[in-house]
Amino acid sequence: MRTNPERRQALLDAAIEVLAAEGARGLTFRAVDKQAGVPAGTASNYFANRDELLTQAGIRFYEVIQPTEETMALVSNGPKTKEHITTLMKEVVGRLESHRTAYLALLELRLEATRRPELRAVLTERVRADLDFNVRNHLASEMPGDADSVLLLYLALNWLIVEHLTLPGIFDERQSLALIKTAVERAIPS
Amino acid sequence: MRTNPERRQALLDAAIEVLAAEGARGLTFRAVDKQAGVPAGTASNYFANRDELLTQAGIRFYEVIQPTEETMALVSNGPKTKEHITTLMKEVVGRLESHRTAYLALLELRLEATRRPELRAVLTERVRADLDFNVRNHLASEMPGDADSVLLLYLALNWLIVEHLTLPGIFDERQSLALIKTAVERAIPS
Repeated sequence: MRTNPERRQALLDAAIEVLAAEGARGLTFRAVDKQAGVPAGTASNYFANRDELLTQAGIRFYEVIQPTEETMALVSNGPKTKEHITTLMKEVVGRLESHRTAYLALLELRLEATRRPELRAVLTERVRADLDFNVRNHLASEMPGDADSVLLLYLALNWLIVEHLTLPGIFDERQSLALIKTAVERAIPS
Repeated sequence: MRTNPERRQALLDAAIEVLAAEGARGLTFRAVDKQAGVPAGTASNYFANRDELLTQAGIRFYEVIQPTEETMALVSNGPKTKEHITTLMKEVVGRLESHRTAYLALLELRLEATRRPELRAVLTERVRADLDFNVRNHLASEMPGDADSVLLLYLALNWLIVEHLTLPGIFDERQSLALIKTAVERAIPS
C-alpha cells in the first residue's frame, strides 16, 4: 500500500465527492481516480478494497467537519447561558451545512452501512465517540443543560440539516434559526 | 400506460424494496420487474420514465406508513396529557421502524432528490402537507403543546429512527424509549 498522506487524503476527499454525487453504488476505484484527477490504478494502491475505501471515507468526514480551535475556544470561554448555546448550535448547523457534500456522503455511507457490517461497526464507533465527547464537553463547560439536552439537540439538529440539504423548501432560513433557538430553549430545562 | 391498480401498487412496493436494497442508482425498470416477479417490460408499461417511478415510489411511502383508523382515533380520543403524547410518539416511531424498508427507501429518495428537481418538488409538497396536517391535528386535539412542539418532535424522532435503522448500536431500546419520553416532556412547555 502507498502511504503519501496528502495523496491519500486527496483520494478520500474525491471519494466523498463521488459518494455525494453518485451514491454508494457509484463509488468505484475508477470513479475516485477520475474525480481526484490521478492516473487510473492510484486509489487501488492506497486502499485494499472497496470496504476500506468506504470506512476511511467515513472517518475522513469527521476530520473535514472538525470545528476550528477558535470555535472550540468559544465553547469553553463563552458565557454560560442558553443564548450562547443557541449561538454555538447555529455555528454547528451552519458548519455542517457548509460541508454539504461531506454531509450527504455520510448519509450515503449510513445507508450503505445497512448492507455492510464492517462499515456499520466503524461508523457506530465514530458516532458514539462523537456523542460521548459532546456530552462530556458540555458537562465540563458548566453550561446549563444535562446529557439529555445534548442528545435531544443532536437528534433535532441532525434532521434539520437533512431537511435543509435534501428538501430546502421545507424550512426557510428564518424558520430554521427560530427552530434552533426554540430547540435550545426547550432541550435545556430551566 | 397500463392502469391495473393492484399491479401498479405491487410495482411501487417492489420499487421500494429495490431502493432500500440497492440504492437509487440500482432502481431500474428491469430490477423492479424482477423484484415484483413480473415479466420484463411490465414496469415500463406503468411508468413513463425513471423520474416518474421515483416520484410515485415517494408518494407510495406515505400510503404504506399511514396509521390505522384505530391509531388515529387514539389521537383524538385519548387523554390530553404529556404521558399520552409519549405513548403516541412511541407508536409513531415503532410504526416507522416496522416499515424499515420503506423508511430506508425514502432516505434514498431524499438523497436522489438532491440531483432531481422534479422528485424534490414532489417530496417537498408531500412533507409539507404531512407537517401541516400534524400541526393542525395536534392543535385541534387540544393536547398540551404548540406548533413548535410538533416540529421539534418531528425533527428529533426522525433522526432517532435514522439512528436505529442505520446504526442500531448507538441507542438501545431502553435509551430510545427514555429519549422519546424526554423529548416529549421538553418539547412541550409546561
